[in-house]
Amino acid sequence: MNIPKVNVPRIVIVGGGFGGLNLARALSRKNIQVVLLDKHNYHTFQPLLYQVATAGLEPDSIAYPFRKIFKRQERFFFRLTDVESIDMKAKKVCTSIGELTYDYLVLATGSQTNFFGLEDVERHGMSMKEIPEALDIRSLILQNFERALLSNDLEEREALMNVIIVGGGPTGVELAGAISELRRHVLPQDYPDLDLRKMTIHLVEASPRLLVAMSEKASKKALEFLQKMDVQVWLNTFVENYDGYIAGANGGAKISGQTLIWAAGVQGNPVLGVPEDLKSKGNRILVDETNRFGPAEFAIGDAAQMTTEQFPYGHPMLAQVAMQQGKLLSKNIMSLIEGGNLKPFKYADRGSMATIGRNKAVVDLPKFKFQGAFAWFVWMFIHVIALIGFRNKLVVAFNWMYNYFRYARDIRLIIRPYVKK
Amino acid sequence: MNIPKVNVPRIVIVGGGFGGLNLARALSRKNIQVVLLDKHNYHTFQPLLYQVATAGLEPDSIAYPFRKIFKRQERFFFRLTDVESIDMKAKKVCTSIGELTYDYLVLATGSQTNFFGLEDVERHGMSMKEIPEALDIRSLILQNFERALLSNDLEEREALMNVIIVGGGPTGVELAGAISELRRHVLPQDYPDLDLRKMTIHLVEASPRLLVAMSEKASKKALEFLQKMDVQVWLNTFVENYDGYIAGANGGAKISGQTLIWAAGVQGNPVLGVPEDLKSKGNRILVDETNRFGPAEFAIGDAAQMTTEQFPYGHPMLAQVAMQQGKLLSKNIMSLIEGGNLKPFKYADRGSMATIGRNKAVVDLPKFKFQGAFAWFVWMFIHVIALIGFRNKLVVAFNWMYNYFRYARDIRLIIRPYVKK
Repeated sequence: MNIPKVNVPRIVIVGGGFGGLNLARALSRKNIQVVLLDKHNYHTFQPLLYQVATAGLEPDSIAYPFRKIFKRQERFFFRLTDVESIDMKAKKVCTSIGELTYDYLVLATGSQTNFFGLEDVERHGMSMKEIPEALDIRSLILQNFERALLSNDLEEREALMNVIIVGGGPTGVELAGAISELRRHVLPQDYPDLDLRKMTIHLVEASPRLLVAMSEKASKKALEFLQKMDVQVWLNTFVENYDGYIAGANGGAKISGQTLIWAAGVQGNPVLGVPEDLKSKGNRILVDETNRFGPAEFAIGDAAQMTTEQFPYGHPMLAQVAMQQGKLLSKNIMSLIEGGNLKPFKYADRGSMATIGRNKAVVDLPKFKFQGAFAWFVWMFIHVIALIGFRNKLVVAFNWMYNYFRYARDIRLIIRPYVKK
Repeated sequence: MNIPKVNVPRIVIVGGGFGGLNLARALSRKNIQVVLLDKHNYHTFQPLLYQVATAGLEPDSIAYPFRKIFKRQERFFFRLTDVESIDMKAKKVCTSIGELTYDYLVLATGSQTNFFGLEDVERHGMSMKEIPEALDIRSLILQNFERALLSNDLEEREALMNVIIVGGGPTGVELAGAISELRRHVLPQDYPDLDLRKMTIHLVEASPRLLVAMSEKASKKALEFLQKMDVQVWLNTFVENYDGYIAGANGGAKISGQTLIWAAGVQGNPVLGVPEDLKSKGNRILVDETNRFGPAEFAIGDAAQMTTEQFPYGHPMLAQVAMQQGKLLSKNIMSLIEGGNLKPFKYADRGSMATIGRNKAVVDLPKFKFQGAFAWFVWMFIHVIALIGFRNKLVVAFNWMYNYFRYARDIRLIIRPYVKK
């Protein structure tokens, strides 16, 4: 892999999401060698993926090249590669571009979509964990509208316009809201020949309420906002099958729509070589309270499952957890190198939020919960601040202002048509 | 195709480039039915494609959805489709989504890359006529740099870094300049392990000077600028073969580089059903001085070849020609419908320009030729003004300012890796 062997410890980090990136940034200025491996050459700001999928933002707004973040850092190395397996005995990782030994290894491989074994849903549905997938969703929605124009069969037309979103977490709620705004402000002008009142946006949630990880108040308000925006919300409903046209749910319900976005579950990204008994049911790696799972091996973020009294099923799979674990681990690894002790992780819940549409968001802070227009401004402000890079902040802020004042979503471009699997 | 038959004439326009779009805009407010067919759902501002290929702009900056341009126009119809053939006898077009009859047909299908029968160049080289192709070039250049890092073979490293651009017209010159700026300002920071002095940018031109369509002064200055920017310019050189690694040229010259961009020639986009005797050697449709090639059939822009005393080989394949022909044809078609006479086309040459790098451009106006920093400002100003849509003007202006002051090209993202054919 052409990385010089030097006489400082080598830390290999697999994955540059929120956890891996925070860790790498904290370590890259220390007197150690840091190697970051990722299958993309950029960090993805996943919380805004749904805006790429709904023609509000281009990928460059939410992606940031790793090499730009770490420019001019001599002891930092980035390699674009797929990690195939790890060998804990020999302390090395095997990748598509060769092997690399490590002194310390951190798996920050994040999560992948969990279809819970529903093969037909996986085949015909769309997932949205990465930028290319979000672009595919953007293309598919637009392509289906173009196809709807060609049909005289009113039922087929509706099915082509309809969107089924499975999963009422933040991703599902935000997608449903964004598509509802497309339907209201953009699509009627683009497709005057189509009766947009026939387009239904279905949001299907298996539990009795939306945003289960948030407060009851937030759930209630999110539901209210979505209903006001004419989104068809299905609670206590789980999709059991999907043939590309109709989704079948429990109790015999049939939901018609040729675009189905699956945001109903994630699981860890398994890496070959992690002992089987260290993997949780959800494919996460069982780690101790310092994120350790081997003598020199760590896992953080979604990839790791750290169970505590407060979190008997592991910490929530959130950017906040990953970032905090990355930050602490940077200190713990330096401490380990210097022969010190490791500090256990303690999650500081800073709150959570979701946006539904213009002037509509829900925010749960530890001591204060609020909803509506102010929540929406807070949501926007925090997301702009959290973006990496001055340019991305500016580009996103500009696009949001533009889209707000013009009721616009101008990136409705089918650059690469999506071809059904 | 689901387009209502009404009792006003139907004009079918194939292709929404500069010519077709100008025509459609001019006609869409008249009392006729206008149907625009294109294989993309957006208009591409081709003069800035090279900036997409070199990580300076995202596609949304230079693409504009057709439906946005024509929103709320009742007698205008857009269909996303590939036109397969035309039937002049039956007055209909056959497409991937069905047939459509016309009262008047305008082919504005533009041009495609002409590899002059060099099959291996076509297989291993990149062309740049459309946004997906420009994105492929962006990916390939970055992928090759990532691969260069992995090689210890210094020759292979160089070949992976090198870029060969064939064709010294505006596209080739602008690409060479933009890649040279990447090499100077961006790549050294991203790849401190690579010796960028070993990266060679080759610009290969078959004729004795660059920018043959411009003044001698512009050619000379462009060459001077490029040499100052350390671009290897080959004049009187034509690439004869390319195996993905080495391009062979006349006189036995060998040019090594794993990225080859072919900007050396274009030809018309042939449409089945146009009589063979109406096609020129370069696949353009021979039209009369009113752009007509059949009783109800017209062709404009790159797709058409109108020969006059001044242009014995047809008008130059330029946006200006296409736009002027589109504009005149809109009047001629209305005149035809109203039983009037057709006016012959007369090209008003407003000049041409090319940019090489920061503060470096060449401008030929009919009465005034200038080069350098002022020319560069004029180039930028005119291109921003010419972009369609307020948002795109703003986005491009912002990106250019940002890139100018920060010496940045932040869109160096490999969103979809390019897979060699």
